[in-house]
Amino acid sequence: MNKSSAIGKFYYFFPQAVALVGVRKNVMPAAWHTPISAEPPLYGILISPKRYTFELLQKEDGFTINFLEHTYAALMAKTGSTSGRDINKCNEFSIKTVPAEKVNGPILSDSYAAYECEKYAVAEHGDHFLFVGKIVMLHYREEITTEDRLIDTQKVRSLLYFGKDRYVTIDPHSLCIFERK
Amino acid sequence: MNKSSAIGKFYYFFPQAVALVGVRKNVMPAAWHTPISAEPPLYGILISPKRYTFELLQKEDGFTINFLEHTYAALMAKTGSTSGRDINKCNEFSIKTVPAEKVNGPILSDSYAAYECEKYAVAEHGDHFLFVGKIVMLHYREEITTEDRLIDTQKVRSLLYFGKDRYVTIDPHSLCIFERK
Repeated sequence: MNKSSAIGKFYYFFPQAVALVGVRKNVMPAAWHTPISAEPPLYGILISPKRYTFELLQKEDGFTINFLEHTYAALMAKTGSTSGRDINKCNEFSIKTVPAEKVNGPILSDSYAAYECEKYAVAEHGDHFLFVGKIVMLHYREEITTEDRLIDTQKVRSLLYFGKDRYVTIDPHSLCIFERK
Repeated sequence: MNKSSAIGKFYYFFPQAVALVGVRKNVMPAAWHTPISAEPPLYGILISPKRYTFELLQKEDGFTINFLEHTYAALMAKTGSTSGRDINKCNEFSIKTVPAEKVNGPILSDSYAAYECEKYAVAEHGDHFLFVGKIVMLHYREEITTEDRLIDTQKVRSLLYFGKDRYVTIDPHSLCIFERK
């Protein structure tokens, strides 16, 4: 293997599902996000202080996270290359939303799942801030989930980001399941 | 959409590349991980205090993160269903490794990319701890990268975790690229 201590862009962790983060009326795609805790249910998003969403997150007590299918790749790219400082993205790109119930943010009508998160902790690490949210409400399309509320891999083509404006989805035929003994 | 404030397992964020975390001679797969900062280059992993890796991370100054292809799904499942408290996984499962250069952990010879991370920050959130590492060395197979050191989507079938011992990979034909104006 090659190696380098000049790190530059370390994009080997991709692909990663894209999370469309919503605060007030605005949305932005975040490729840097992760579950944090099972109980309490916590989810983390990494936001640069340069982003308009960062400003909104300073003022609000929560946010939404929306997951979309691969067919929405072009829409996701548009929401990522524009700023809510300049335009109302939901109006401009005809994004259908309903208000979240417990936080001030949008739930996308076309998402297959979405979380409502209350702000739980905020920490600055390097050039980004980690916003940890407590999931207080789940939204999901029943027809895409298995009995135990997992995503059915045969029914959803999750939108995955691969870095540098590249998007892919999964190959459902590649599914392997390993039963634990 | 259905909704629920009884959160339970919120597995809608999957799929996610699996990171095989190495400390000392031990490895464990982590499905909860994310980039944290571009400059300095920081990477975060979420580890439960129940894990042997957690014990090792308390004592060591760093760790490795290894990315493997989909053909290693069965191996990854085995490393996830056993503990380094009971067995030496690398010996037991014939995992070829070389020592990292800057931290005390293994680099998998079969990984397509790996990071060496120095411990940078640790934070407890709910039932997991976030270990933030500063990437101090990159390892990657030159033949799988594009000119600008991104993964070539046509050459790597990244191993993605889909929750509950289910693994998938990407469909390379689904690649969409959106040039920014």
